[in-house]
Amino acid sequence: MDLQDLVERLRKGEPRAIARALTLVENDQPEARELLSRVFRVFGGERSAKIVGLTGPPGVGKSTLVDVLAKLAREHDLDVAVLAVDPTSPFTGGALLGDRARMDSGAADPKIFIRSMATRGHVGGLSAAVFEALVLLEAAGKDFILVETVGAGQDEVEVAAAVDVTVVVLAPGLGDQIQASKAGLMEIADILVVNKADRDGADLVAEETHAHTDGKPVFKTVALDATGVDKLFTEIERTHGERRLMESWLLNCLHRAVREKIPADAWTAALERLNRRQTTPYQAAAALLESLKS
Amino acid sequence: MDLQDLVERLRKGEPRAIARALTLVENDQPEARELLSRVFRVFGGERSAKIVGLTGPPGVGKSTLVDVLAKLAREHDLDVAVLAVDPTSPFTGGALLGDRARMDSGAADPKIFIRSMATRGHVGGLSAAVFEALVLLEAAGKDFILVETVGAGQDEVEVAAAVDVTVVVLAPGLGDQIQASKAGLMEIADILVVNKADRDGADLVAEETHAHTDGKPVFKTVALDATGVDKLFTEIERTHGERRLMESWLLNCLHRAVREKIPADAWTAALERLNRRQTTPYQAAAALLESLKS
Repeated sequence: MDLQDLVERLRKGEPRAIARALTLVENDQPEARELLSRVFRVFGGERSAKIVGLTGPPGVGKSTLVDVLAKLAREHDLDVAVLAVDPTSPFTGGALLGDRARMDSGAADPKIFIRSMATRGHVGGLSAAVFEALVLLEAAGKDFILVETVGAGQDEVEVAAAVDVTVVVLAPGLGDQIQASKAGLMEIADILVVNKADRDGADLVAEETHAHTDGKPVFKTVALDATGVDKLFTEIERTHGERRLMESWLLNCLHRAVREKIPADAWTAALERLNRRQTTPYQAAAALLESLKS
Repeated sequence: MDLQDLVERLRKGEPRAIARALTLVENDQPEARELLSRVFRVFGGERSAKIVGLTGPPGVGKSTLVDVLAKLAREHDLDVAVLAVDPTSPFTGGALLGDRARMDSGAADPKIFIRSMATRGHVGGLSAAVFEALVLLEAAGKDFILVETVGAGQDEVEVAAAVDVTVVVLAPGLGDQIQASKAGLMEIADILVVNKADRDGADLVAEETHAHTDGKPVFKTVALDATGVDKLFTEIERTHGERRLMESWLLNCLHRAVREKIPADAWTAALERLNRRQTTPYQAAAALLESLKS
């Protein structure tokens, strides 16, 4: 398949073309940059999709909640994509397994596209692959894109900054220490969910979460039987957070560009000076930037 | 405490001085850069410590293994530090809980320093905080530094590249998909461990792991009763991987420096051009770098 053909089929929303484009991006293959440039020049920055980030610790039922939200979005006749970002998948195969289980339920419907992404060879890191995947999915005509992440590492924080709305999912029974230590997470949340709300302690978690976030909305759901997910969906629809996808992607491209611009010998010389303690990393970084000017 | 006083007490290995220095770094406070510069100019790049990265999926018994390794290192009269990097801790409080449980066992011994790090306000991300913490711990006279991470996200891959030796811990019972999907992880491993080796399937996991890694050493341990950990410790001692801490830290500083150098109006103008699709992020990044020259 040539690149222009791929762009056209992607634009029509063909699942196989989307899958192929995402593979190019995930592996950071040479064609990926050209593909993205072509897609971006024509369809970039359209903002036709609602991009929803969904994160939370293992075991709170994120994947089930994502599946229910995806089905609800289909009932509203939206064209849906799910991107499951799983940094642990090289260990557990979690993303692969998830893919298969989900593909079965959605296989008959070309308007639900489901894909998991793990760390592969992308020099810009996992978050770069996610930014580029989001640009492609929006160009492919998706209306409602769910990005599922685990934890609150650098990848997750970067993804949360890039999307329209970030939903943080909690559940009762995660231990007494949650309340004290989740502060960092609360900052990235637009909407909070206490899933497994039929379990003991759910009300307490919801109340404490509400209190700790200066009144951010907290929704109670039972994803397994879809209880409360319709209200959550409505809230997601009417929440307009600040999407910083272009900023995040540009910053990532800038990081890659500066590293590519520095000649190998200048880099080696800087490291040697560092190892001899003739400079600090802060000074060496400033000097390397300065050297680009000449 | 003034900064010079802090440097001197850090150098003596005083636990409270180390703790305070790490807090400055973790929160990326203004004094942190000056502290690190001073420490680095005098003690940087000493390579007096063995820095060991230890990673693996949740539930394989990493923390227990780390504790046993730390105790073994103490028996060899090494001055030990444990850095537990837990990106999920804002959710689960895992790092905090771990700290407390461990502090109890090690509190009487000033030569075991234990600290957990989560994502806080560091603009360079979690891995930047880890790089800087490692420099401080080595300057504080630590001989054996264990860095425990979870998963294989960007943070973990960056940490693995920075340390001397990377140990990847697996266990039986993680599901059939492990073998197919753990390839990305195997690349960062110097040593592989199958923990919980008294359980069914441990031999099979060890054999398959060995086969999939072109013969990398695979050790079987039962961390709970320390079985096999002495052999693992000996292997760690005699393995000399490539430490890329300086490269990693310098690259991180370079990323921060380039962003700081770009004037706000140039950044805004680039974003506007992007949003009007007059440029691509790759072109915009190159143009921003070019603009630094004038």
